Amino acid sequence: MKLLKLRIDINCDLGESYGRFKVGQDSRIMPHITSANVACGFHAGDPVTMAHTVDLAKRCGVAVGAHPGYPDLMGFGRREMKLNSEETKSYIMYQIGALQAFAAASSISLQHVKPHGALYNMATRDRDLSKIIVEAVQCIDSDLILVGPPTSMIAKVASEMGLRVALEVFADRAYNSDGTLVSRSQPDSVIEDPKLVVERARKMIEQGTVLAVNGEIVHLGEIHTICVHGDTPNAVEMARTLKSKLLAAKIDVKPVGSFLQ
Amino acid sequence: MKLLKLRIDINCDLGESYGRFKVGQDSRIMPHITSANVACGFHAGDPVTMAHTVDLAKRCGVAVGAHPGYPDLMGFGRREMKLNSEETKSYIMYQIGALQAFAAASSISLQHVKPHGALYNMATRDRDLSKIIVEAVQCIDSDLILVGPPTSMIAKVASEMGLRVALEVFADRAYNSDGTLVSRSQPDSVIEDPKLVVERARKMIEQGTVLAVNGEIVHLGEIHTICVHGDTPNAVEMARTLKSKLLAAKIDVKPVGSFLQ
Amino acid sequence: MKLLKLRIDINCDLGESYGRFKVGQDSRIMPHITSANVACGFHAGDPVTMAHTVDLAKRCGVAVGAHPGYPDLMGFGRREMKLNSEETKSYIMYQIGALQAFAAASSISLQHVKPHGALYNMATRDRDLSKIIVEAVQCIDSDLILVGPPTSMIAKVASEMGLRVALEVFADRAYNSDGTLVSRSQPDSVIEDPKLVVERARKMIEQGTVLAVNGEIVHLGEIHTICVHGDTPNAVEMARTLKSKLLAAKIDVKPVGSFLQ
Amino acid sequence: MKLLKLRIDINCDLGESYGRFKVGQDSRIMPHITSANVACGFHAGDPVTMAHTVDLAKRCGVAVGAHPGYPDLMGFGRREMKLNSEETKSYIMYQIGALQAFAAASSISLQHVKPHGALYNMATRDRDLSKIIVEAVQCIDSDLILVGPPTSMIAKVASEMGLRVALEVFADRAYNSDGTLVSRSQPDSVIEDPKLVVERARKMIEQGTVLAVNGEIVHLGEIHTICVHGDTPNAVEMARTLKSKLLAAKIDVKPVGSFLQ
Repeated sequence: MKLLKLRIDINCDLGESYGRFKVGQDSRIMPHITSANVACGFHAGDPVTMAHTVDLAKRCGVAVGAHPGYPDLMGFGRREMKLNSEETKSYIMYQIGALQAFAAASSISLQHVKPHGALYNMATRDRDLSKIIVEAVQCIDSDLILVGPPTSMIAKVASEMGLRVALEVFADRAYNSDGTLVSRSQPDSVIEDPKLVVERARKMIEQGTVLAVNGEIVHLGEIHTICVHGDTPNAVEMARTLKSKLLAAKIDVKPVGSFLQ
Repeated sequence: MKLLKLRIDINCDLGESYGRFKVGQDSRIMPHITSANVACGFHAGDPVTMAHTVDLAKRCGVAVGAHPGYPDLMGFGRREMKLNSEETKSYIMYQIGALQAFAAASSISLQHVKPHGALYNMATRDRDLSKIIVEAVQCIDSDLILVGPPTSMIAKVASEMGLRVALEVFADRAYNSDGTLVSRSQPDSVIEDPKLVVERARKMIEQGTVLAVNGEIVHLGEIHTICVHGDTPNAVEMARTLKSKLLAAKIDVKPVGSFLQ
Repeated sequence: MKLLKLRIDINCDLGESYGRFKVGQDSRIMPHITSANVACGFHAGDPVTMAHTVDLAKRCGVAVGAHPGYPDLMGFGRREMKLNSEETKSYIMYQIGALQAFAAASSISLQHVKPHGALYNMATRDRDLSKIIVEAVQCIDSDLILVGPPTSMIAKVASEMGLRVALEVFADRAYNSDGTLVSRSQPDSVIEDPKLVVERARKMIEQGTVLAVNGEIVHLGEIHTICVHGDTPNAVEMARTLKSKLLAAKIDVKPVGSFLQ
Repeated sequence: MKLLKLRIDINCDLGESYGRFKVGQDSRIMPHITSANVACGFHAGDPVTMAHTVDLAKRCGVAVGAHPGYPDLMGFGRREMKLNSEETKSYIMYQIGALQAFAAASSISLQHVKPHGALYNMATRDRDLSKIIVEAVQCIDSDLILVGPPTSMIAKVASEMGLRVALEVFADRAYNSDGTLVSRSQPDSVIEDPKLVVERARKMIEQGTVLAVNGEIVHLGEIHTICVHGDTPNAVEMARTLKSKLLAAKIDVKPVGSFLQ
């Protein structure tokens, strides 16, 4: 952690509405983040929503990334599916390409790719799946940044294969001592007090550590982006507070693509 | 028709399989055409099929175009849907973008866009819809060629708005005297004799005319591409014969992007 | 209007969530209605939601009906689609059958069928479509009640073909002088003052009339069910007020199947 | 095997077309089988196809069963999905109910339920999943027969829970010595010689055994139904030969519901 100036990205999953099924509060969250992970139509998101989300992000100066998921709208991409490598690879390419159309129309380039839901979770521990995801991204554009958790298989594989990796933490989620997130099915898995969330975020950024539920200190190493939720009742307040308090602590808050080597 | 050297493109709708639902005989048709209209996942086609089809086209030296349709897999995009402008535009952009991902991965550029099914038919007579389709294409890449029938509204609008337009005829379909196709529900709407099809194709290319069912001569004007079907029993034989006989008649058969101004 | 005792049904479209896309406030609305129109998975609704909705309705003593729509989840079944008769008929049968599975599991029978969205609107004026809808219902169970607007084609056709018809009004929507609803795109198309809505509902029930936007009195004739919206901000308050005020006015509020001959 | 008269059912997966995606050769296979497993719209099949298939089965005197699968049209229901119990149960109920609509319209009752693809395979070894499938069937109609492989978990669980179980074999597939099928990815996993298939079928029916690939004799016990494939090149010939040769060997070939206790 020898940075002269501390900096962080704040990312959020957005554009998750589907047709008339409106979810989230994108226009109120967008001003308080620096990177948007945009759903691409397989687990959520539809072309009209994608167009609006990209346009909104551009107007707010927020960097745009693809958030590809499993082809499971009914399960919101949160259910594991056993696809073969070719299926996984082409599904991811398809979704990134579809989002690129709207980025191109808004004269911006995609900054990153962050797998969604079950695909994200499975990739944290599955080397073959991680490899396929990285290949899919590289087939499209090897300048894209891959977003994944520190110490995860996908972060390791992406790095080995030459992609830039943005290491992601969740300031409002409890951690196990092995660096994984406490399951949402557990009580206290989500931290709702903005003050506490800011405190944890600062420790993550400034010291690269987080306190696990068992009291141990987890070493996360250097991290690049904090994920905030867009669908919780206090999501807007949380994002606003986090950004303003980090800025007040002299931490630069900006898109990860602007500082990641 | 003052061309020093006559030339024509042969296009075919391909990549229409969906997952394990295999249709068409793409690998056998591909060597006999010069432009492939690739389904993009809304009315047909899936990411794996798209990847294979683009790859196959590239290996055969066939130019690739997007074949976007309505989001109606169960109806194969052949049923009219009343979408608003924003929906139509973003659905088309989405599909073109998705296909571009596979084109990029194969280091090729898309040559054209040809609307599919009900979208194609509605655009032949609907000015507003035509305008939206052209806008969608221009948002992505204004070098893309739009494929449509001669004397159609979409051909007129696309041309007015500055897109290059490839005028398309069907050598194996009967024509009405107003230049429209005889409905498939009519007897003799499809011409199955390859010899007759070649004869009609030559007249279309060399004289810009076709004999209507009522005996009148229809003036089509200069045409650029002939559509062959990929899903009829004698599709391969028809495509092979057409291409070889046109070549034998000293007509250049090549992708429309190579000669359209 | 020579009823000894006035009676009315209150119906609402429910079960419109889709997987993790949660919409509406079903559990809060259900106690204030007497008939639930349950989405069946084509334009909204999924099997888990259907199971929950049927179960909730049963516990609240609310009659259950099928609310079939076009296979257009992205457009919420509100976009016209040009299907042939066989498609329309079998899509409706499929959806009713699927809902019957959950009704059977809860030991209840379906009371009614109310077409959704574009299907409902198109059937108000299209005789052929109306006929197909009625045939689909009769193929399943000729005791099912069809819900449609007074003076509509579908009400007329269903009646001619021998189905019981529940004539439906919207107490919170403005009417044109021809008995049709003022389009939602017009200002003042929706009435938000519960007091005014109750007043209009009473006139509809007691006198069979409604005041059109141009000041004329529209004769609706005998009506059987009032539709309340489940997705407006004040939906619960509106339903609660309507039901309690009608009861206070000595109007029986009960499922249409209990009183329709 | 103390039956006075040997009898067997021949079942086949049918109705697997989806809209214009036509697969199989249902009308040619149907006369040679006694039970049809009809796809219900999630992994294959659409309402029009379901209506036609039920109608065709009725005309051929073939018993009809539901063939529910995972909601994965792109993967044809052959890819494992991790659903929770509530999802699995309600998806199966939904599909059976939908098919019942067409059975009711044809005045027939469903005979059986046979899970499809990954759902079928997973249930052969997963007790919790098997339990959920049986519960779903019983919620609809406890007279329905469940079809599953001998010695499988689902056959055991269904039997324990009181459902009638039709034990199913594949006469044209190679078996491992533990009674499981040799994976299709292996050479010689499928037996294409009709004479050999008939021979194996007779041994299965008459002796309750099959020769495994390693030369051991597998004891299957009493079996009730033989599955034939509808989508292989020689499917019709195979079904015709099998049925006629079994009849010639004095084995009754009839729907399993007519003889299963």
